[in-house]
Amino acid sequence: MKIGITNETNDKRVALVPDTMRKNAKNFSFLMEKGAGNQASLNDAAYGDLTKICTREEVLQQSDILLSINPLPDEDLAKANPKAVLISLFQPYNDPEITERLEKHDFRSFSLDMIPRTTLAQSMDVLSSMASIAGYKAVLAAANLLPRYFPMMITAAGSIRPAKVLVLGAGVAGLQAIATAKRLGAMVEAFDVRKAAKEEVQSLGAKFIEVEGAVDKDAGGYAVEQSEEFIKRQQAEVQKRAANSDIIITTAQVRGRKAPTLVPEETVNQMKQGAVIVDLAASSGGNCPLTKDKEIVNHNGVRIIGDSALAEDMPQDASTLFSNNAMNFMKLLLKEEKLFIDMDNEILNSAYITKSIAPN
Amino acid sequence: MKIGITNETNDKRVALVPDTMRKNAKNFSFLMEKGAGNQASLNDAAYGDLTKICTREEVLQQSDILLSINPLPDEDLAKANPKAVLISLFQPYNDPEITERLEKHDFRSFSLDMIPRTTLAQSMDVLSSMASIAGYKAVLAAANLLPRYFPMMITAAGSIRPAKVLVLGAGVAGLQAIATAKRLGAMVEAFDVRKAAKEEVQSLGAKFIEVEGAVDKDAGGYAVEQSEEFIKRQQAEVQKRAANSDIIITTAQVRGRKAPTLVPEETVNQMKQGAVIVDLAASSGGNCPLTKDKEIVNHNGVRIIGDSALAEDMPQDASTLFSNNAMNFMKLLLKEEKLFIDMDNEILNSAYITKSIAPN
Repeated sequence: MKIGITNETNDKRVALVPDTMRKNAKNFSFLMEKGAGNQASLNDAAYGDLTKICTREEVLQQSDILLSINPLPDEDLAKANPKAVLISLFQPYNDPEITERLEKHDFRSFSLDMIPRTTLAQSMDVLSSMASIAGYKAVLAAANLLPRYFPMMITAAGSIRPAKVLVLGAGVAGLQAIATAKRLGAMVEAFDVRKAAKEEVQSLGAKFIEVEGAVDKDAGGYAVEQSEEFIKRQQAEVQKRAANSDIIITTAQVRGRKAPTLVPEETVNQMKQGAVIVDLAASSGGNCPLTKDKEIVNHNGVRIIGDSALAEDMPQDASTLFSNNAMNFMKLLLKEEKLFIDMDNEILNSAYITKSIAPN
Repeated sequence: MKIGITNETNDKRVALVPDTMRKNAKNFSFLMEKGAGNQASLNDAAYGDLTKICTREEVLQQSDILLSINPLPDEDLAKANPKAVLISLFQPYNDPEITERLEKHDFRSFSLDMIPRTTLAQSMDVLSSMASIAGYKAVLAAANLLPRYFPMMITAAGSIRPAKVLVLGAGVAGLQAIATAKRLGAMVEAFDVRKAAKEEVQSLGAKFIEVEGAVDKDAGGYAVEQSEEFIKRQQAEVQKRAANSDIIITTAQVRGRKAPTLVPEETVNQMKQGAVIVDLAASSGGNCPLTKDKEIVNHNGVRIIGDSALAEDMPQDASTLFSNNAMNFMKLLLKEEKLFIDMDNEILNSAYITKSIAPN
């Protein structure tokens, strides 16, 4: 079975890394567009003989599985082998027409972001892998911009107090942000509507902030929408702490909806000169109304970094994790060395988004 | 006694912070050029009533002491009160004509970089304060650019091995770089010609690399020049490790001389795609011949950050430490509420660079 990968569109990552190919050479063969790994610091030489290196057209036409991180653009869909199985992060909840476009070309398609977030599917959970990187990178981006040290410093020129970091949302990204900020020596407070997050936050050495009255329900790793009254109380709690915070990292997204406002403008106005906000919900409207996606806004001396795609900025390890996750998923498609889509498998069934096309 | 500070030239730092003024308001009064602290996230309001806020001309003409981080430009020297005492980082070893220019205007001048690096003068040691920030920021800059994680990650998608960091030169900057890289979870190796550095490096949890035959002498916190033969052996040792390193941070400077080459081009050629070199000796020629000062060079996929002034990128704490250091120095100038330069004081004597002008 031939798996094909192409150069990603506006993205430094690559869908498969050499190590994944090496470990799975028995079951799969590979086609790669020339230079697909370059921006992830994996040039063609790094792939050696593990993959056939060819043109984009050849990959599109000769692959049994077309794996990509970002959905292939429409012009590729028109050229690709219609018998191919497409695997990507199609995000059908954000792009309701994607299924129709895929079905038009008869592509059997799996969206990796539709995998259930169960223990069994953990090894295929691309969203968690990328969220974890985003949390790590959010802290680095903030530390790089902050005009102050993160750790406490006791020097001959006096003591420097540690930076104070407030993390809003303690999902995968939030927890990795907490862990990284603690590593760097900051004092960290964190907030989450899920009470279950309390123990995780505390186990990382951070303080858990409680706000009463949340709808405490797991929505597959995403937050659920909260009442207006609760959001007001939550905003007030954030505002109390914001004036003392050097850094706020916000991670609250509700799948398929606009992100909730956790840091209103009046809160930003009370923050210190030089403070930094990293808004990881930027692509879905932001947890701060001043956020602009893919920009750094300076609001009276407070910098707001709007970026939901920080994983792309650490392309090699992001590619390694995507590659491993995707391979763990693709192994499910193999039955006696042939492709077989078992719709009784919960993971395959959940991820299969082109329901009008027969899977086999 | 009036201390005056101005907007720094091409530098985000400010020579005095509000906290230093507050603690020393009994002994000194202050004049500040409008907006001098803005870029360090210390706007005029942050100074409140601690200082008179005025024009640059007023500061230059009315101050008894003119304190600046960077030497005042010549046009300021022409306007300033000739009775003023000038305190700055004049770096006479890099600018041999600076003394003449100052003496021409009759300015009694102290260069803070000429303070002896003794225990007594530690609280005034601006170079150490700034070197420490540079070491911290070097690691952040590298981590931000590296396409990989620093810490080891054990995830459902497989394990990520920790980044490998090689630090060349374990002075103040090198030690802070080691400490920061360790905090972030990297594996760290370090090298220094001074055997005394071994224990410090090891106490931070890093591995000390030994190269036999160095001239092991302390030159006031700077490295001494080594024999050509030793440098070759050292380069060979670095080269052995470079191919495995994700990051190399170089910090070896010899005061008043070109920095030694520790990472020749053939070593860079053997490094991994995506590896990052941070060359803190960039302003004095670099420890790598490919380094360009104030630029990021991409050499076949290895990025080389050339920057000797990383402290300026963390302007608030850099200002705080400079401010404390400078104030500890200026207190030595005070005798019964009057300015008196005691040339029997070793610190004052060493820092006084305008020897042809009578100190009092």
